[in-house]
Amino acid sequence: MSGARTLAGKLIDEHLISGNPVPGEEIALRIDQTLTQDATGTLVMQELEALRLDRAKTRLSAQYVDHNLLQADEKNAEDHAYLRSACRRFGLWFSRAGNGVSHPTHMQRFGVPGSTLAGSDSHTCAAGSLGMLAVGVGGLEVALAIAGQPLYLRMPEIWGIRLTGDLPEWVSAKDVVLEMLRRHGVRGGVHRIIEYHGPGLRGLSAMDRHVIANMGAELGATATVFPADDAVRAFLRDQGRADDFRELAADSGADYDVTDEIDLTALEPLVARPSSPGNVVAVREVAGTPVDQVVIGSSANPGFRDFAVAASLVQGRQVAGTVSFDVNPTSRQTLVDLTHAGHVTDLLRAGARIHQAGCLGCIGMGQAPAPGRNSLRTFPRNFPGRSGTPDDSVWLCSPETAAASAVTGKITDPREFAKEHDLAWRAPAEPDRPAVLDDVVTAPLPPEQAARTELDKGPNISGLPDFTGLPADLSAPVLLKLGDDVSTDEISPAGARALPLRSNLPKLAEFTFTRIDEDYPRRAGETGDHFVVAGRNYGQGSSREHAAITARYLGLRAVLALSFARIHWQNLANFGVLALEFTDEADYQDVEAGDMLEFTELPGCLAAGSEVLVRNTTRERRYRLRHRLSPRQVEAVVAGGRIPQLAQAG
Amino acid sequence: MSGARTLAGKLIDEHLISGNPVPGEEIALRIDQTLTQDATGTLVMQELEALRLDRAKTRLSAQYVDHNLLQADEKNAEDHAYLRSACRRFGLWFSRAGNGVSHPTHMQRFGVPGSTLAGSDSHTCAAGSLGMLAVGVGGLEVALAIAGQPLYLRMPEIWGIRLTGDLPEWVSAKDVVLEMLRRHGVRGGVHRIIEYHGPGLRGLSAMDRHVIANMGAELGATATVFPADDAVRAFLRDQGRADDFRELAADSGADYDVTDEIDLTALEPLVARPSSPGNVVAVREVAGTPVDQVVIGSSANPGFRDFAVAASLVQGRQVAGTVSFDVNPTSRQTLVDLTHAGHVTDLLRAGARIHQAGCLGCIGMGQAPAPGRNSLRTFPRNFPGRSGTPDDSVWLCSPETAAASAVTGKITDPREFAKEHDLAWRAPAEPDRPAVLDDVVTAPLPPEQAARTELDKGPNISGLPDFTGLPADLSAPVLLKLGDDVSTDEISPAGARALPLRSNLPKLAEFTFTRIDEDYPRRAGETGDHFVVAGRNYGQGSSREHAAITARYLGLRAVLALSFARIHWQNLANFGVLALEFTDEADYQDVEAGDMLEFTELPGCLAAGSEVLVRNTTRERRYRLRHRLSPRQVEAVVAGGRIPQLAQAG
Repeated sequence: MSGARTLAGKLIDEHLISGNPVPGEEIALRIDQTLTQDATGTLVMQELEALRLDRAKTRLSAQYVDHNLLQADEKNAEDHAYLRSACRRFGLWFSRAGNGVSHPTHMQRFGVPGSTLAGSDSHTCAAGSLGMLAVGVGGLEVALAIAGQPLYLRMPEIWGIRLTGDLPEWVSAKDVVLEMLRRHGVRGGVHRIIEYHGPGLRGLSAMDRHVIANMGAELGATATVFPADDAVRAFLRDQGRADDFRELAADSGADYDVTDEIDLTALEPLVARPSSPGNVVAVREVAGTPVDQVVIGSSANPGFRDFAVAASLVQGRQVAGTVSFDVNPTSRQTLVDLTHAGHVTDLLRAGARIHQAGCLGCIGMGQAPAPGRNSLRTFPRNFPGRSGTPDDSVWLCSPETAAASAVTGKITDPREFAKEHDLAWRAPAEPDRPAVLDDVVTAPLPPEQAARTELDKGPNISGLPDFTGLPADLSAPVLLKLGDDVSTDEISPAGARALPLRSNLPKLAEFTFTRIDEDYPRRAGETGDHFVVAGRNYGQGSSREHAAITARYLGLRAVLALSFARIHWQNLANFGVLALEFTDEADYQDVEAGDMLEFTELPGCLAAGSEVLVRNTTRERRYRLRHRLSPRQVEAVVAGGRIPQLAQAG
Repeated sequence: MSGARTLAGKLIDEHLISGNPVPGEEIALRIDQTLTQDATGTLVMQELEALRLDRAKTRLSAQYVDHNLLQADEKNAEDHAYLRSACRRFGLWFSRAGNGVSHPTHMQRFGVPGSTLAGSDSHTCAAGSLGMLAVGVGGLEVALAIAGQPLYLRMPEIWGIRLTGDLPEWVSAKDVVLEMLRRHGVRGGVHRIIEYHGPGLRGLSAMDRHVIANMGAELGATATVFPADDAVRAFLRDQGRADDFRELAADSGADYDVTDEIDLTALEPLVARPSSPGNVVAVREVAGTPVDQVVIGSSANPGFRDFAVAASLVQGRQVAGTVSFDVNPTSRQTLVDLTHAGHVTDLLRAGARIHQAGCLGCIGMGQAPAPGRNSLRTFPRNFPGRSGTPDDSVWLCSPETAAASAVTGKITDPREFAKEHDLAWRAPAEPDRPAVLDDVVTAPLPPEQAARTELDKGPNISGLPDFTGLPADLSAPVLLKLGDDVSTDEISPAGARALPLRSNLPKLAEFTFTRIDEDYPRRAGETGDHFVVAGRNYGQGSSREHAAITARYLGLRAVLALSFARIHWQNLANFGVLALEFTDEADYQDVEAGDMLEFTELPGCLAAGSEVLVRNTTRERRYRLRHRLSPRQVEAVVAGGRIPQLAQAG
């Protein structure tokens, strides 16, 4: 060890409250900022109520309305009114519907190099683009951070990715992160912080880095960190916040736990095939595949240049008659800039459908494609059914690939498109003076006025259910046996039907696991206490704690899996569901849905060590399982979750 | 009678195929153009299939995708693909999603003074702004028109409205039609064509006239007609279609059946209170009422000036923190112009949510307000629940009133707002060279290629049900007794849940009458043949023939009402449901839900004259009813509707 420090290591050290920052150990970090969005935020606000918070104790907490924008019935607008009142009550910033996706908007208005950010959205890691340590976690973790509690994490490994060279023409930041996914898959970043460094950074703007940091979530990483360098300085200056800049970088020759290198010059346009962000191939390998829908936008391609380059490709042309070309601006500011620069007009003239700024189709709020047709999107995720269409066929790519394909009606390598249409490459010109819209985000009320604010709580805001603690002895059936990489989209679906119920847990529970087994909610309701068995990387994807809460509400007591995704693992513990890992893969093979499992003296056993034994009484077998809970977490699980635990502690 | 002719009379004479154009007599008109939208168009295309049409026989038929734009699941996109393929197959123009609402888009690209237009949308009458005779009818009427059949109408009275004076500052076209509704209510125009004339026209552009003509539907009128004068000439020149202009006007001193006069100078800002377009009061009478949502757009305020004036009121301000300010551009062309002129930027900076061009909240596709809150909209309709929120509270007003209220957060007279903010009135400057986007609307295929086109028919396209003919004797119960002014929104709801099922009649039928009685579909399904009793103006509002078909599908055989709205009355006949009027209002008072009614020898009786007797066997009473069906319609009803009738005719 040279002693030269990584940037991630420095950020952790600066915020360390307790614990030893050695990979695998639990650490506690001071949280400077929090971010919540509406689909997870209504629960966070109910948790703040349950915690009897008077006023936010963070430096800055911001609530965004970006997910539930369709308002198919009265529930969304009711949620928005509740969130606004809760922000006024608890001293949070409030970003109204139409301001845009939380991640780019937060970066523009509030991002500060060197700060920590905890967000109840898995793509919170995008803020790593500014040299922040930004971590997506469950809503309760954010509520506790707002209440001044530290964030507990298992210390990840630091993974240094050295970038060299320069991106070729028609290849962009999205292709960099797709290359990461091509190499390492959706589990490649699990229990790691990805730290980008090296000379290749010089060609990547802060918003380009946002693209790469954002999809660190798809690699399963805890966070992604970029240095705060001249690109970040320029970004903050454009935002009228030059004073928030602070230069940050790893020491030269820093010791990374793991390393890799990408030569940007060697990259080419890439695309993730259906239905995993890890299914990456070169665009040329699948060129010619017909597409019926092309969507640009989302937090995975939010920058001015992402829309501008797409506009330049479709300018003066019409998109194919078979294609719905949907444009989802990602922030109000960027939309103003794109409008001013004429790109919106070019997109409109080419046949685009330009939507309000927000997540929209990326979270399955509308834009569902026709069945059996290919949809090509610049989004971060293509998990099965997330689009709203059963058996969908969603592909992920860069804006360059998307725009070229919109015109041809088939998956098209933008380099070939440019050649065919005699288009010379020109980097999109950034606006000279980008719009800065301070006044569309509402500042917290002064304390006295805040204390007098009533919460605006309509009939769709259900309140948190009361959960009982873990029984000493537990005998119950396995209701589901699942494979690898089950996402939280499959546990508790998003989409236009389920999302409006995010504040109404009893009703939302009726959707639990229905993407996999329509009958699960009924059987679980009848059975009561039960177990679920799963393969590797269980609970990947979105941070929604609803995936833990609604399953617990239906009686889920433990998940036995080969491994867990970080955020969901933490959410399970927070709401009193035991997460256990098989130590022998053969045991996972052995157990089947319908088997009865029996645990005895659980609390004592969990506290005593990491090993837990379970008897499969159906097969007369015994499995050795491992838990990775800290003593703090064991206590929470035994109490029925962290809220009962805190209540018990008085 | 002076012999001086009305413009409406001339248009009818030019297109008369048969019948005597005397009020109350059935006439048949040659149809030059048709318009369909997606929520009614999928049935029209299925009807073209049932009619075994080879190619459209009209001069021009255009299909728009403007209603089902949310795509909450796969059904909408599947419908769009079907419509596109049907346009290719049958020789229709196709306007893709995002091009905008059918009415302004049709006016911009296709409107021709002196032509007839039949449209499967009740606001088709908007095209009267260009001196067209434009009539909203059921889908089957449009299908038959596309197939070259005449349109049958009961000849309406011609109602001359003389306009004098000039609109005051901050008062606009919407206030003119709201004044009509204030004076005459939602039944004032029934069985009438409204013809505007007089010196007050000089200050109304073609698009202002669209606003007034559009909401002729809310007055219950068959059509609205404006002269084709210099304002229309200017409009067509701007659209690059100067050659389509033809000067048209009533003869001086024309003989109208009914007359009224509006002095524009005397008008003030008006607003329709919840939940009928007829509940009109002065804005100043309700000023100060808090609003949580303000929406501008829809076919009832589609013009460049409507958005521009709103932008000028919010420019440099923020809308109130409590308000969701939604902007629904109505056509792609107009959105391009608004973008180019900087108005979109002003709206965005003020906090607006700018949506894709289309109907959106106007048809309950999203934008549902929070329960118990007021929503202020520039839309044409505020029938109960149409917004998607049960027990909603929707108000209708001009863009001036809407924009001022968005800033203050309460209903605000724009004249007072202007005074308070020291705003001088300036008519919005129209673009010098408005955008003309010819290439976003797809022209019909050449016949040979069309004939080879396969229909793209996904699993959500159900096909038309087979209906049996009217039995000679019919004894069945009354399942519902309803009051006055029941709208087709209450018979077959629109909105985000029901609209995606517009191509799937068995599933859509499960929504029939559920706004009024949730249990109706179940009871009807169990009962089979049954009746519904209603008050005046039964079936007002939207043209959707689904309101007739789904009720018939569930067993509805006859509606007994005090009076019927025109389009629904025709739809009932088209699908074999008998529409009967009480001759004595006391009989309507007498009959109750649950009563058994008995008809005997129906076909003979219907053919013999206009009187029909029914026995209420529960109350031992006999009612005398009247039908207004032509012999042609009697034959259709007896056969089970026009499609079986045509099939029988071979």
